[in-house]
Amino acid sequence: CRNLTLLRSIVDERLEVFSADTIGIRDHALESVGSRIVHGKGLTAGEYSPDLRTNFLAWLDWKLSPARPAEAVIDSDTTIGNCWACEPSNCNVTIELHRPLIPTDVSVDHIPEKIALHMSSAPRDFHVWGLRRHPSFAGDEQDQELLGTFRYDIHQGKPVQTFPLHVKKESPLSRLKFQFTSNHGHANYTCVYRVRIHGKEWEDPIRSEIQD
Amino acid sequence: CRNLTLLRSIVDERLEVFSADTIGIRDHALESVGSRIVHGKGLTAGEYSPDLRTNFLAWLDWKLSPARPAEAVIDSDTTIGNCWACEPSNCNVTIELHRPLIPTDVSVDHIPEKIALHMSSAPRDFHVWGLRRHPSFAGDEQDQELLGTFRYDIHQGKPVQTFPLHVKKESPLSRLKFQFTSNHGHANYTCVYRVRIHGKEWEDPIRSEIQD
Amino acid sequence: CRNLTLLRSIVDERLEVFSADTIGIRDHALESVGSRIVHGKGLTAGEYSPDLRTNFLAWLDWKLSPARPAEAVIDSDTTIGNCWACEPSNCNVTIELHRPLIPTDVSVDHIPEKIALHMSSAPRDFHVWGLRRHPSFAGDEQDQELLGTFRYDIHQGKPVQTFPLHVKKESPLSRLKFQFTSNHGHANYTCVYRVRIHGKEWEDPIRSEIQD
Ligand SMILES: [K+]
Ligand SMILES: [K+]
Ligand SMILES: [K+]
Repeated sequence: CRNLTLLRSIVDERLEVFSADTIGIRDHALESVGSRIVHGKGLTAGEYSPDLRTNFLAWLDWKLSPARPAEAVIDSDTTIGNCWACEPSNCNVTIELHRPLIPTDVSVDHIPEKIALHMSSAPRDFHVWGLRRHPSFAGDEQDQELLGTFRYDIHQGKPVQTFPLHVKKESPLSRLKFQFTSNHGHANYTCVYRVRIHGKEWEDPIRSEIQD
Repeated sequence: CRNLTLLRSIVDERLEVFSADTIGIRDHALESVGSRIVHGKGLTAGEYSPDLRTNFLAWLDWKLSPARPAEAVIDSDTTIGNCWACEPSNCNVTIELHRPLIPTDVSVDHIPEKIALHMSSAPRDFHVWGLRRHPSFAGDEQDQELLGTFRYDIHQGKPVQTFPLHVKKESPLSRLKFQFTSNHGHANYTCVYRVRIHGKEWEDPIRSEIQD
Repeated sequence: CRNLTLLRSIVDERLEVFSADTIGIRDHALESVGSRIVHGKGLTAGEYSPDLRTNFLAWLDWKLSPARPAEAVIDSDTTIGNCWACEPSNCNVTIELHRPLIPTDVSVDHIPEKIALHMSSAPRDFHVWGLRRHPSFAGDEQDQELLGTFRYDIHQGKPVQTFPLHVKKESPLSRLKFQFTSNHGHANYTCVYRVRIHGKEWEDPIRSEIQD
C-alpha cells in the first residue's frame, strides 16, 4: 500500500459491510420486514421456564424478569440479554416469511465472547427445516424437509455465523424451522439471540404476468 | 506504512468518525436534542395511506401495521422499517430546531442497498426550504426561501449523503422544510429514514450581553 | 504490509473489538445482566431539577421533558440525550452488581465531541467507592472504601474511558458507588451517559464445593 488513500478505502469498504447489519447480507426473517414467528406445537416450542416445584425461587425470579418472547430472535437488537431462552435439547422456532423465498443460507447471532458473562448458553447443534403447508393443513401438522444440519462455533470469534443450506430449493418456501438440539454446556437453557434467513425472491411467472 | 501502529491508528480514526453517528457531524434536527416536527398543511404533509375504496386489504394492512409517524425522520434509529412513508411526489416534512441556527448542510439517510429489500422507495429529488415565521403569522402561512435542490443517489453506496446548502444564510433560521418530489421508482410511497440539519449556533450579540 | 489480506485482518480485528460494546471488555454493571441502581440518601442522589421558584419556565420544561431516571447510566444505549442529569458537585450513583465481584476497572461513557451540542455537561472528577453491607445494616448507613479517584478527559477524543482501580480487592464486593464532583463547566447539570464495572467473578471455595 503505497498511499494512505488506498488504506482508507479498504477500511471504509469493511465499515460499509459492517454497518449493513454486520455482514452485509439481506435478512428476510426480520419482524420489521413483515415476517413473524408461528407459534404452536412442533413449530415454536421449548420456552425455558424453571420448575415451580423443584426450584420456587428460580421460578419466581423468572416470572418477575423481563423474559423475552420468541419474537426476540427476529429482532435485530442483539444487545446483551435480548435473546429467547429455551430448553437446551428441545428448542424450536418457526418463521413465516414476509413472502415466499428460495432460501440459500441462514445465519445465527450470539453476543461476542469478549463481553458475554458466559458462552455456555450459546446454541451449538441445529437443524433447519423447510415446512410445507398443505391445503389439507390441520392444526400443527405439515410436511417438513431437512435443509441442513449445522454447528454454531463459539471458538472462531465470529458472533454472526452464516451457513449455506445443503439442499438447493427450486420452488419457494414460506416457513422455515430452526431446531436447536444442544448448547455449549449450560444445564438450564439455550439463549438464541437472532436467526437470519437469506435467499432469493421468487417471481411467480403466472402472477407476474397478471400484475404487468 | 512501515508499521502496524500507523495502520491501527488509521483504522481507529475511521472508527471514531463512524461511531460518531456514522459521519461525525453534529445533527441539530434530532428530537433527542429538542427539535420537533411541525405538523400542518404545507409544513408536514403527504403521509402515505392506501385508498380504502380501491384497495381495502392494503388499507386494512396499513391501519394494523406499526406505521411510523413523521417523527421517525428525526429519530437516529435507522434499522430497517424505521422510516416515514409518504406520497412519492408530495412528501413534506418541516423541522423546528431546538434553537435558531445558521444552517450550512443537510443530510439524508437511507438503509444500505446490501440489506434493503428494495431501493425503489428511497427518496430521490428534494428541495430544502428555510421558513420564516412572521409576527403576523396566522395558521400555516409563512415565507419560505429555497436553500437548495438536491438528489439522493442510490448508486454511490453511501447510506448517509450530505449536501452543502446553496444559499449561505447570515441570520439564523428556526424552521427548515424538506420537500421530496420523487423517489427511485416505487409507485406507492417514499420511505424517509432520516434527515439531518448541520450548522453553526448563532450568538445574538444583544442577548449574549444581557446574559453575561 | 505486503498484502491486502493482512490489512483486512487488522481492520476486522479492530471491528471485532468495536462491535463488542466498543471496548471489548465485559461490563457487569448493565441492568440487562441483572445489576440495578440502589436508590437512597448517599447512594443514588443529586438528580437535577430546576428550581420552581427561580425559574418556572425551565422547571416546566424539565417536568414535560422525557428526563431519564438514574437507571439510564446502566443502559448500554448512549445515543444523544440518553443520560442521567444530576447536580454538578453532588452526583452519586450506586450499583448493586448481579453477583459479588472482584472489581478491577471502571469505565465512563460520554457522547463523542464531534456530535455533542456541548461538552460542558460531561463528567470530570469522580471517586469510586466500594460499599459494604453490614449484617447490622440499617437504612442507608454502610461502610465505604475509596477504590480510586479519576478524571474523565474530554480532550483525548475517546468517548469511553477506562480506569484501573487503585485498590486491589481480594474479597468480592456487591455495591459500588460513583461520586461525580465536577463537570466540564456546565452551570446547571452533569449528564452521565454510562458507567461500567469490570472485574473477575469470585468463586466462593465453600459454595463451589457444595455445588459440585
Ligand atoms: K434479538
Ligand atoms: K429513523
Ligand atoms: K445510557
